[in-house]
Amino acid sequence: MASQADVTTNFFDEDTTLERTGDNSFSGFFHETWGLAGGTPNGGYLMAIAARALQETLDHPHPLTITGHYFKRSDTGPVVVETEKLGRSFTTSTGFARLIQDGVQRTHFTATFTDFDHAVGQTIVHAEPPKLPAPEDCIAHPYVAGRSPKFQEKIDMRFHPDHMGWAKRTPHGVGEMAGYIRFSDGRDPDLLSTLLFADAVPPAVFNVVGPTGWVPTIELTTHLRNRPRPGWLRFRFTTRMLTRGIFEEDGEIWDSEDRLIADSRQIQKLMVPRKGVDS
Amino acid sequence: MASQADVTTNFFDEDTTLERTGDNSFSGFFHETWGLAGGTPNGGYLMAIAARALQETLDHPHPLTITGHYFKRSDTGPVVVETEKLGRSFTTSTGFARLIQDGVQRTHFTATFTDFDHAVGQTIVHAEPPKLPAPEDCIAHPYVAGRSPKFQEKIDMRFHPDHMGWAKRTPHGVGEMAGYIRFSDGRDPDLLSTLLFADAVPPAVFNVVGPTGWVPTIELTTHLRNRPRPGWLRFRFTTRMLTRGIFEEDGEIWDSEDRLIADSRQIQKLMVPRKGVDS
Repeated sequence: MASQADVTTNFFDEDTTLERTGDNSFSGFFHETWGLAGGTPNGGYLMAIAARALQETLDHPHPLTITGHYFKRSDTGPVVVETEKLGRSFTTSTGFARLIQDGVQRTHFTATFTDFDHAVGQTIVHAEPPKLPAPEDCIAHPYVAGRSPKFQEKIDMRFHPDHMGWAKRTPHGVGEMAGYIRFSDGRDPDLLSTLLFADAVPPAVFNVVGPTGWVPTIELTTHLRNRPRPGWLRFRFTTRMLTRGIFEEDGEIWDSEDRLIADSRQIQKLMVPRKGVDS
Repeated sequence: MASQADVTTNFFDEDTTLERTGDNSFSGFFHETWGLAGGTPNGGYLMAIAARALQETLDHPHPLTITGHYFKRSDTGPVVVETEKLGRSFTTSTGFARLIQDGVQRTHFTATFTDFDHAVGQTIVHAEPPKLPAPEDCIAHPYVAGRSPKFQEKIDMRFHPDHMGWAKRTPHGVGEMAGYIRFSDGRDPDLLSTLLFADAVPPAVFNVVGPTGWVPTIELTTHLRNRPRPGWLRFRFTTRMLTRGIFEEDGEIWDSEDRLIADSRQIQKLMVPRKGVDS
């Protein structure tokens, strides 16, 4: 298998490229590929761009935890990223990145970085990768050109056959979505692409209420736990608590060697209020 | 039972009071009561202060989600809070609060506010309050003056008898901590005190690795779901994934009428590296 150093540059790396324009400022471009209907780029894509800017700003190389707040719509087009150092300890450093388009701040990100190659400490994991049939027995994303998010063309995603109710508009009522994920060109995963994958799967809430269209993210936090080894990643996303159209989504991502790579949580909203019991 | 309007002012309200000093600036004081050993104030206490400043800044009255990043140590003493409006929709508004001591920014908070009294939308909750014996059959916090965090004197906390291994230094190996919580003076809960309670319980990881002392929070996000009704709140905190001394803690808080009040997640670190398997 390829080592970490052999990961080759692909479309994702190119589409998240930044040019340094000052000590703590960068210019980049939100590519149309990563936009949803209407052009708003995927939240995990924005997070990967913010993480790249912070990687250039901070004294540690690897994101350990990163939080994004999506308070104004972003669009396809140029973006300015301004970063700030916030704090530093021996093992971690924390920074802030503001993503600005047309002079208006649209999103911001706070991240703590570490060095996974030197980090030490106790490890006890009471969790397991999702139980899945082999990739060839799982169901590919039912991509429909012009209707599905364009970036699904760039990602190879295979779902547990029991979790496909959303695609047939017969949700089975349980907020769960598990499967395999990788880039469609076979490029192996790394920490930055894990940030993308943590927000690239159709929302697990679609298996509760059906596919409702765009569900905007208010806040997304991803904790990274290990640098992924080559091969398929496996994901499991769950939503248990929908209150007045607002819901959390919890994620876990595991690598081909059964190592935990990331856990994530986001809070999102259904765009169309539906009839239901308010408590 | 008392209605929401009858909630009386208590020590918590007094200790989180802010004075407005400008359009978007406030002055306050971190009281010793809410400090851990060494004086660092509790992270939920800081979050409640930030939420009060944002409540005065934003156009909606109730916190829906708030994230804190704790990148430098805070201390007992005066604090300046500077706020900023970030975005607004019809149903929510988002703002940013920086907490500054001695001219140095120590923590920051991003929050989205809403109006729970007018919010509408679908509600489906696939989760239940923790199963607990009656409060009188649960175990009170084993408070030791001079050793336990001082604020435990101000909070009445009762633990599930099965979750007390940490206090006897015989952790049973499962990262779970469930019980009842309220103010010791009987003041009923509200949204701001829920932010405190979401970070006031001894870490669930103590039931995995034993009580290790202070476990600093890197990032904490609390989602609020409903305004609590009077009476005891019930909590359940869990930690499943400890990797190289870094771990998440997930929380749920329920009210006396079995309504979900909050879910929270934080990422923390054990201060003393211990022997274990790194993966």
